[in-house]
Amino acid sequence: MVTLTEKPDSETRYDRGLRALAEIDGHGGQQVVDALADIAPDFGRYLIEFPFGDIYSRPGLDLRSREIATIAALTALGTAQPQLKVHIQAGLNVGLSRVEIVETIMQMAVYAGFPAALNGLFAAREVFAANEAA
Amino acid sequence: MVTLTEKPDSETRYDRGLRALAEIDGHGGQQVVDALADIAPDFGRYLIEFPFGDIYSRPGLDLRSREIATIAALTALGTAQPQLKVHIQAGLNVGLSRVEIVETIMQMAVYAGFPAALNGLFAAREVFAANEAA
Amino acid sequence: MVTLTEKPDSETRYDRGLRALAEIDGHGGQQVVDALADIAPDFGRYLIEFPFGDIYSRPGLDLRSREIATIAALTALGTAQPQLKVHIQAGLNVGLSRVEIVETIMQMAVYAGFPAALNGLFAAREVFAANEAA
Amino acid sequence: MVTLTEKPDSETRYDRGLRALAEIDGHGGQQVVDALADIAPDFGRYLIEFPFGDIYSRPGLDLRSREIATIAALTALGTAQPQLKVHIQAGLNVGLSRVEIVETIMQMAVYAGFPAALNGLFAAREVFAANEAA
Amino acid sequence: MVTLTEKPDSETRYDRGLRALAEIDGHGGQQVVDALADIAPDFGRYLIEFPFGDIYSRPGLDLRSREIATIAALTALGTAQPQLKVHIQAGLNVGLSRVEIVETIMQMAVYAGFPAALNGLFAAREVFAANEAA
Amino acid sequence: MVTLTEKPDSETRYDRGLRALAEIDGHGGQQVVDALADIAPDFGRYLIEFPFGDIYSRPGLDLRSREIATIAALTALGTAQPQLKVHIQAGLNVGLSRVEIVETIMQMAVYAGFPAALNGLFAAREVFAANEAA
Repeated sequence: MVTLTEKPDSETRYDRGLRALAEIDGHGGQQVVDALADIAPDFGRYLIEFPFGDIYSRPGLDLRSREIATIAALTALGTAQPQLKVHIQAGLNVGLSRVEIVETIMQMAVYAGFPAALNGLFAAREVFAANEAA
Repeated sequence: MVTLTEKPDSETRYDRGLRALAEIDGHGGQQVVDALADIAPDFGRYLIEFPFGDIYSRPGLDLRSREIATIAALTALGTAQPQLKVHIQAGLNVGLSRVEIVETIMQMAVYAGFPAALNGLFAAREVFAANEAA
Repeated sequence: MVTLTEKPDSETRYDRGLRALAEIDGHGGQQVVDALADIAPDFGRYLIEFPFGDIYSRPGLDLRSREIATIAALTALGTAQPQLKVHIQAGLNVGLSRVEIVETIMQMAVYAGFPAALNGLFAAREVFAANEAA
Repeated sequence: MVTLTEKPDSETRYDRGLRALAEIDGHGGQQVVDALADIAPDFGRYLIEFPFGDIYSRPGLDLRSREIATIAALTALGTAQPQLKVHIQAGLNVGLSRVEIVETIMQMAVYAGFPAALNGLFAAREVFAANEAA
Repeated sequence: MVTLTEKPDSETRYDRGLRALAEIDGHGGQQVVDALADIAPDFGRYLIEFPFGDIYSRPGLDLRSREIATIAALTALGTAQPQLKVHIQAGLNVGLSRVEIVETIMQMAVYAGFPAALNGLFAAREVFAANEAA
Repeated sequence: MVTLTEKPDSETRYDRGLRALAEIDGHGGQQVVDALADIAPDFGRYLIEFPFGDIYSRPGLDLRSREIATIAALTALGTAQPQLKVHIQAGLNVGLSRVEIVETIMQMAVYAGFPAALNGLFAAREVFAANEAA
């Protein structure tokens, strides 16, 4: 089970969060934090500390499963397209295949309707295309 | 990867869906279909055919991951407590540990807020207790 | 096309709303207004004036279609079960058949997912049963 | 009551869905299916089979009422602007007047708030303008 | 407590609403009403009469608190970015500081998740930048 | 401006959060944390640390305004009735009047529809009645 590698006890939530953010979101996450610098720098810090330093760093659920959960939820909610794209990329980063991501999104048609799944699939198409162009 | 076992080509969507429903939801799913018999029997059939016969039967994503996706989405949406409980039980049925289910729900605090995660955790507590009582 | 019957120019929004409320919701609507009397009486008045005096009284869409729209929306949102039940009864009051109501709710599986449609169907079953008991 | 014309028993769900899709959505629906071809072709097939082959083909509710239900729900949800525009066009295709569409959307202010209705009206204005330009 | 200034008894809801709209939303509100003129002029009137003539004109809650409530709700819902921007500007118009607006939006991470708060903060950044450019 | 009283630098997030929780939610908040003890004790800790230790403890927005924001958001979302009741009580605890709470909830009719406001008002009526009974 691939979870975040063990941490020394002395590591702060912020440092652990930064490590998790880099491993999971790559550049996408850091760009969000940078974009907050002039308007709500503390929120950029919270974003590193709570979601990444506290939640994604926990043992008990591997990172691939965590990204399936996040992709499913953001597809179903349908209110956070930029964050959904970041996490489709994050899914690829932690080892999900394109097929696994597409299956996760398709399944949301059952729980949140066809439009939610369609908009999720179009987000995935965009992220996959950006990976090929890179 | 545990997905629904291979099916003969001649199996109908309905029969395949019934198999998937039994394997995943156990009694909970069939009770929902029965409850529809007097008001919308066709909808009971669709419920077997599309979500279970079409979606959950697909290869490409294992059943444990499918249940993580569903538990995450229903927790985040917050509008389907009865169905969330059915799928927390389904998660146990297909091999998720209690810890994995709890971690999935906790993570939703990040994407849908603390109340959504709290209400999901209380649903899980109820399902876990019912399993112990049984 | 059955819309609210023509009104004299001198009728106030409140009186027109009361007429529409009585015709559409019957007792259910008035009970809601009464329940607001001790906490937010002005809101009871707004409820009569804007939704019923302004919107439901408009020509241009018949009352049956208006109730289809409301039943669809409340089923899809999934956050207003008491109001959904009031409007399933209202649909019957203005002439929708049980079949038309059930079809409207079932269709929401496509746009808001199967749990939303299921919870809507169970609300309809309850309202239909109450009509038979009465 | 205008519903999908009777079908021979031998017609598959897919063929029936294609007929319904063409009659209801016209080009808009087919474009969505085409857009899925490279990322999730099976989902394009499901989209034809379940919403159109199963649901919209059912007797019991005429196509005009079905489109009122869909326009109402998508306006209220507020998370599917592209699909709302497709169904405003679909409403025109199956015989709804602009007034009926506008009244349906306006009514959603009561159930989902003024911003949802406003964003729905602006979608309608865009679709109506595209019809005039064509 | 700054609420809308006392009105003569003879003032209509429409006139009172226009006053409130001008005081709260400034140009942004009137532009929305104008944009409705060709598609749903009555809805433009309702928008002035109910939200502004009835609700925002009420004593009992000052305009600063009313804008905090609206900014919080629109951030949490995540389905009305144009209206959120109008009300971030409205918050500045009635005397909220940038800090108070940013704190209100940040707090929504707790109740609606981090993506909702992030998208709200980016809306605020845009509105604040437009104020500086003006 | 009433915000949480100044804290010594050495106070942990957990201790600061406990202080804020006690001041704002009183018994209600602690009961939630206790209820998590057997299923997700870490989540009980996060609930104290992030919402209360990080967010509600911040200067820049007074506690009355913070509760208005929370009551507005939970009313508008309509998916968290237990938490809405806790925060209606919290509003009273930090000095909001019943009128201010009722006005905040009523205003949500504009942004999330009349059913959301109605269900919020009924929650308030229940909390107010419990206060009188106590």
